[in-house]
Amino acid sequence: MWTAKLLLISVAVVGPASPGFPKVIPTVGEVWPHPQMISQGDTYMIVRPSTFKFSVTGKDCDILQEAMKRYKDIMFQSSSHLKTNPKDIWRKDEAFSGYLDTVSINLMQPCEEYPHHDMDEQYEIKIDSPDQPGEGVILAQSIWGILRGLESFSQLLVSDGSAYQAKSTQIRDFPRFPFRGFMLDTSRHYLPISKILEHLDLMAMNKFNVFHWHLVDDQSFPYESAVFPNLSKEGSYSSIHVYTEKNISDIVEYARLRGIRVLPEFDTPGHTMSWGPGQPGLLTTCYKDGEPDGTYGPIDPTNNDNYDFLTTLFTEVTDRFHDHYIHLGGDEVSFSCWQSNPNISEFMKTHNISGEYEKLESVYITKLIELVSHLPNKNGYLVWQEVFDNGIQIAADTIVHIWKSETVPAGWKKEMSKVTQAGYKTVLSSCWYLNYIRYGDDWYKYYHCDPHDFEGTDAQKQLVMGGEACMWGEYVDGTNLIPRTWPRASVVAEKLWSSAAQTNSTEKAVPRLEEHRCRLLDRGFRVEPLWPSFCMSDVDL
Amino acid sequence: MWTAKLLLISVAVVGPASPGFPKVIPTVGEVWPHPQMISQGDTYMIVRPSTFKFSVTGKDCDILQEAMKRYKDIMFQSSSHLKTNPKDIWRKDEAFSGYLDTVSINLMQPCEEYPHHDMDEQYEIKIDSPDQPGEGVILAQSIWGILRGLESFSQLLVSDGSAYQAKSTQIRDFPRFPFRGFMLDTSRHYLPISKILEHLDLMAMNKFNVFHWHLVDDQSFPYESAVFPNLSKEGSYSSIHVYTEKNISDIVEYARLRGIRVLPEFDTPGHTMSWGPGQPGLLTTCYKDGEPDGTYGPIDPTNNDNYDFLTTLFTEVTDRFHDHYIHLGGDEVSFSCWQSNPNISEFMKTHNISGEYEKLESVYITKLIELVSHLPNKNGYLVWQEVFDNGIQIAADTIVHIWKSETVPAGWKKEMSKVTQAGYKTVLSSCWYLNYIRYGDDWYKYYHCDPHDFEGTDAQKQLVMGGEACMWGEYVDGTNLIPRTWPRASVVAEKLWSSAAQTNSTEKAVPRLEEHRCRLLDRGFRVEPLWPSFCMSDVDL
Repeated sequence: MWTAKLLLISVAVVGPASPGFPKVIPTVGEVWPHPQMISQGDTYMIVRPSTFKFSVTGKDCDILQEAMKRYKDIMFQSSSHLKTNPKDIWRKDEAFSGYLDTVSINLMQPCEEYPHHDMDEQYEIKIDSPDQPGEGVILAQSIWGILRGLESFSQLLVSDGSAYQAKSTQIRDFPRFPFRGFMLDTSRHYLPISKILEHLDLMAMNKFNVFHWHLVDDQSFPYESAVFPNLSKEGSYSSIHVYTEKNISDIVEYARLRGIRVLPEFDTPGHTMSWGPGQPGLLTTCYKDGEPDGTYGPIDPTNNDNYDFLTTLFTEVTDRFHDHYIHLGGDEVSFSCWQSNPNISEFMKTHNISGEYEKLESVYITKLIELVSHLPNKNGYLVWQEVFDNGIQIAADTIVHIWKSETVPAGWKKEMSKVTQAGYKTVLSSCWYLNYIRYGDDWYKYYHCDPHDFEGTDAQKQLVMGGEACMWGEYVDGTNLIPRTWPRASVVAEKLWSSAAQTNSTEKAVPRLEEHRCRLLDRGFRVEPLWPSFCMSDVDL
Repeated sequence: MWTAKLLLISVAVVGPASPGFPKVIPTVGEVWPHPQMISQGDTYMIVRPSTFKFSVTGKDCDILQEAMKRYKDIMFQSSSHLKTNPKDIWRKDEAFSGYLDTVSINLMQPCEEYPHHDMDEQYEIKIDSPDQPGEGVILAQSIWGILRGLESFSQLLVSDGSAYQAKSTQIRDFPRFPFRGFMLDTSRHYLPISKILEHLDLMAMNKFNVFHWHLVDDQSFPYESAVFPNLSKEGSYSSIHVYTEKNISDIVEYARLRGIRVLPEFDTPGHTMSWGPGQPGLLTTCYKDGEPDGTYGPIDPTNNDNYDFLTTLFTEVTDRFHDHYIHLGGDEVSFSCWQSNPNISEFMKTHNISGEYEKLESVYITKLIELVSHLPNKNGYLVWQEVFDNGIQIAADTIVHIWKSETVPAGWKKEMSKVTQAGYKTVLSSCWYLNYIRYGDDWYKYYHCDPHDFEGTDAQKQLVMGGEACMWGEYVDGTNLIPRTWPRASVVAEKLWSSAAQTNSTEKAVPRLEEHRCRLLDRGFRVEPLWPSFCMSDVDL
């Protein structure tokens, strides 16, 4: 039974004017996430799939060539529904101002090979603008800006049944935050490669730029290492539940072409149960009544071989993933096994830290950070907030990843203040744990969360790199990843890209979000509905 | 971050003995829902896809022929993975007791054409039993029992990489409750035909036997009527968001072949906003300040033409759907529009019920029930509990559908007592509203709910026909229907089929449910995971 009070949706327009009684009437041809500056006229140009082309007027590279090909497919995906011989019906329309047969892509600077933390993503779009009437231009300093511009341009096109209309438009756009991440967890459940690629497509269509890959955890170790092949041989769910070197390079390449960084996480010293069988001596042996009891705890910080192992492993990992940053984890370390182990106690006594297990954890993390800093690629790193909370010395460019206090916003706001006061960069996830599903309109909460909403100086706010939506994998695999994640993640994407002023009203967001959801569905992604609604492409899923 | 306390799963076996560390080790070859009586020996027979056949030794009919074809596909779906030239490896195994090349289907009574409320679903299975060594038999009085038996038989087969093993087995099985329903809502969102058929397949694989189809509601009217075509023309989301006469007969036929009744619901007098545009005069005109305000309320009970309309519509509906029962709704009627309308007030004055809107509702429902009882097919009906709560006179064979008090079990238990004390049959849904999703292991709750768990005599308990899981459609369409519904619905299926004694332990259910989930996934259905886990077929979704 549907109970009215459970539905809090803003009704944009409802009534017999629309077919049936959906809760929302979608916008037409609006861009999601909302561009920083956009102005549109009353006239439109016509884009015809048969004659349309992009033209490179600035720099060029493989990323650009691939993107133009991709966006022509995306733009004209539904063109098989168009009338095959459209009459020249627009000529009689006063608002018609000509055919847009070419859009110039003006890339000002040479392409960079990989997207990176400081990449420039701003771009401009002009369609039939006063200074360039009759023309279409996408202009940016960097290839990453061109990619964002192509996505926005594709969203401006609206099918009229015979061709596509593009309103006279000027856009100047850039992201509010440089770090707009999404985390997937491939340990609790293996995620098929095809679903990860689908997810990357959706990230690009929502202007996310960091894919945080939580590769391994207690439950399974699907990362196939060349230097330590036993890790996945003994720790993956099965021999087919793995990501090979080729799989990883395919995923990194797919992301690169879409301007998305891939940030791997190898969480230690806790959350490592699955590492144990493939690397004897790595995990702490737990004791009961003076004897090993057959179970294992976090990585053993007293075994020096373990640091050699980690150096070799992280050398391989950072080589495969290219990004300057790596995520080192460091969350939720349980002390009970360390407490049971006599060698650990002896070590702590020798180091004058008996009973102070946070300090033992610090010994480990400090050595880990040290070795990571000296890897061939001189990597930077992210850590979960516990590493900061425990007072461990971390490098100046470290990003502290805040994840606690999902239900108590005051908690993460205080943490944001503390971390930035200490001068560290930070990324917020606390309010964007999408794995916590709830009945009803939970996306409202995501739209009301702002990473600048804490007490601090302007300098502190500058240290907020952005945010990251997380989809932990306890209840998620290839069967439900896409519908459960999207379009809920789109809500986070807009908060991270668009200005605060443009994202303060859920009421204004609703009809735009409805259009965006149908757009993603039209493009072939099984993204779920957010309220009673329909899309033309939902009849034959 | 995964927090241990959020995971309440019973751990069947965990440890380095298994690859990785999934939460549960599945059973092998166990039947879900649990058969009433099953005994198994230590030996097994071998089923080879190339030589296996069913043999009809009793009555025969189209339902049986189709089922044998279907189950051969289901049983051998994964047989392409088998070694092509299996050596006769079993001969050396002491437990091997021969090849099962033929299973006899012994149907004792002629087929009935449609499944119905009193259908007989009991069956027996023997594989290499002491009284029929070396043989395989599925035996039942009715075709519906044969269908249930075929499903159980298919679940007994276990691939060993070269062929399928079937343990020596004896099963005598029958359902605990005759009404094991599942409700889908196609008004808040249109559901693609293909997804409804997929859902019916899954229902059959879980021994559900009633598909309650909540066809229309406030938001849209997708039922395409021949007698009143304007209802869907004006009330569906679009001209392609409809179920044609052909679509409906296809769905009813698909269900019939699987022993599933299709119970259509046309909910009145409330929940009818979408009916209005296509049938002027049907809905109550709402007034404000003495003038019609352009909005509409429930069906106008004072307009006698409306009863003629309903008679004609329900004649068509009951003709298309064949089942003896129809669901008449009757829930959540809002009185505010009736209160505003001067003609309604005048009518109530004339009938001496001024101000008593429950009585006005009774006038409507009483007439509706009267007209439905006199339809050509002399249908029986279900109503939502409000119709009983409001003291309306209903026919003796009416089934009262209890849905309220999801969060307060004492509420539905009291209602069960009252309804059965009044001598009515009942079906319980309160505890099985699967649309109310929550983070974590919500299926536990479903497994702990029992429709006999209320105060009442044995005679009262006899009036409990069973239960029904509901998936209301506000947040569900073709993108997420299957993963969101299954295998959560499987939990309800077992509660309704198996004995109370067999379904009182979630701990025992967990490894069986894990096997069943992977089985459904192997069969090609995107059913979601319930805890950290893996299936061999989850790598290429």
